[in-house]
Amino acid sequence: MSQISIGLVQLKCTAKKEENLTAAAEMIREAVARGAQIVCLPELFATPYPCQSEDHRQFDLAEPLDGPTVQLLCQLSGELGIAAVGSIFERRDAGLYHNTAVVCEGGKLLGFYRKTHIPDDPCYYEKFYFTPGDVGYPVFQVMGTHIAVGVCWDQWFPEVARLFALGGAKILFYPTAIGWLVHEKAEFGQIQQSAWETMHRSHAIANGFYVAAVNRVGLEGNIEFWGASLLCDPNGVVLCRASVDRPEVLVVVCDLNKVDVVRTHWPFLRDRRIDTYQGLLQRYLRP
Amino acid sequence: MSQISIGLVQLKCTAKKEENLTAAAEMIREAVARGAQIVCLPELFATPYPCQSEDHRQFDLAEPLDGPTVQLLCQLSGELGIAAVGSIFERRDAGLYHNTAVVCEGGKLLGFYRKTHIPDDPCYYEKFYFTPGDVGYPVFQVMGTHIAVGVCWDQWFPEVARLFALGGAKILFYPTAIGWLVHEKAEFGQIQQSAWETMHRSHAIANGFYVAAVNRVGLEGNIEFWGASLLCDPNGVVLCRASVDRPEVLVVVCDLNKVDVVRTHWPFLRDRRIDTYQGLLQRYLRP
Repeated sequence: MSQISIGLVQLKCTAKKEENLTAAAEMIREAVARGAQIVCLPELFATPYPCQSEDHRQFDLAEPLDGPTVQLLCQLSGELGIAAVGSIFERRDAGLYHNTAVVCEGGKLLGFYRKTHIPDDPCYYEKFYFTPGDVGYPVFQVMGTHIAVGVCWDQWFPEVARLFALGGAKILFYPTAIGWLVHEKAEFGQIQQSAWETMHRSHAIANGFYVAAVNRVGLEGNIEFWGASLLCDPNGVVLCRASVDRPEVLVVVCDLNKVDVVRTHWPFLRDRRIDTYQGLLQRYLRP
Repeated sequence: MSQISIGLVQLKCTAKKEENLTAAAEMIREAVARGAQIVCLPELFATPYPCQSEDHRQFDLAEPLDGPTVQLLCQLSGELGIAAVGSIFERRDAGLYHNTAVVCEGGKLLGFYRKTHIPDDPCYYEKFYFTPGDVGYPVFQVMGTHIAVGVCWDQWFPEVARLFALGGAKILFYPTAIGWLVHEKAEFGQIQQSAWETMHRSHAIANGFYVAAVNRVGLEGNIEFWGASLLCDPNGVVLCRASVDRPEVLVVVCDLNKVDVVRTHWPFLRDRRIDTYQGLLQRYLRP
């Protein structure tokens, strides 16, 4: 298969899980009606973003890998004949929680990825909630191609995109929950969003694959999630970009032959000097 | 020192080494007259770009690390009290040539870096000429800060920028010779140049340091070198950008405090998961 249709579901999330799951299901159906074969949702889309404070009650929002959110995505994947890429606040066991992406296909959970890089910034207190991922950088064969899923903060680390590329991914998804702190938006908003988009484009360019970022929108507490979900091609060209303020379904056709073409015209995988990269495994190369 | 002034010398190179050295010296003096403390020149600025064909006569353009180009840069660095970052076609010994960046300060060659990633594309037949670098990723203390120098093709590899950051660099220079193939420019020119700028910006963002790319301009054989030399800050904001078609001297003041500020607001160095990066030392993670 040389062409594949990708659906990006940009959601506004409410306080009620049932509402979010219903909205997600409707928008997945819309994406599929418009041709989408793989549909991706934002980070932790089933609930409000839970990490704006350190509050033990928020752990009640978590669910296991066979909980209602994954059940829904599995069910839809089977019914609609698609692959669904989602994200959950995973309760793995008592006191052990992850920020986990899931890939559902054929009615089943095909696999999952646990967010490796955990942020901790004002209003994004994720280190309080999530144990860093322990499943490496898996690549999944779905719909005749290979995909991978990083999660939000992972997207700032070129190491992640590279590892997924080396694992064979041709499309890299990033379920995301990123926004402006209300008091920062005027001064830093444009710079922050531009940096975010630049990183996605750079991953596509450096690795010669498609990159899709799927963000939430809307004001939740102190964060205005900035939407702007996007998909860029292996040249880093943004093929589609959502609004900054509305729920939206994007559907875009990706030509997988372009991965081959770009990677032979920009042969970075040919030329990596793996004999010189040992320092990447170090924290720092100075005392 | 929290502020440092950087000069970028965008050159049009001719067939005569003496002309190029004279032009470079004049433009270095201009940059310094405008306040520059560290001045960077384009890749292989002393000669025409030598790699558009595989021609043994081109090796005659090479010179040793104590040859006329380095002598000139050392002399100017001492006379003007600056650091000069240059690039030479290095003859290391019979049959052993490198594409080498040099850093001169106080009248002396402070250190050098040999291009690690060597391209080989139509009209950029560098693998024929240059042995891949064997000096790792050195960082140099100059003018009260730490700088590093990658060379052209290195800039497409996020590994390089990261290794320089881990080595302590606060400003990363890329002497460059990149341009449009004449017959490709109309169709691919804009995409190529945008990808190039995006990579520089992404290195600045991912590593929280300044990045400067210094390119040549002008038509040489089949290549129209696209200039557009730029310097971006640790947020990936382009502080200055040269034209695509004229020799030009850019001088821009960098606030080194911004490296601290950005790196604590975007704390990627804090969160690297070095326990998960072993795959980066592999060619590929599939059979």
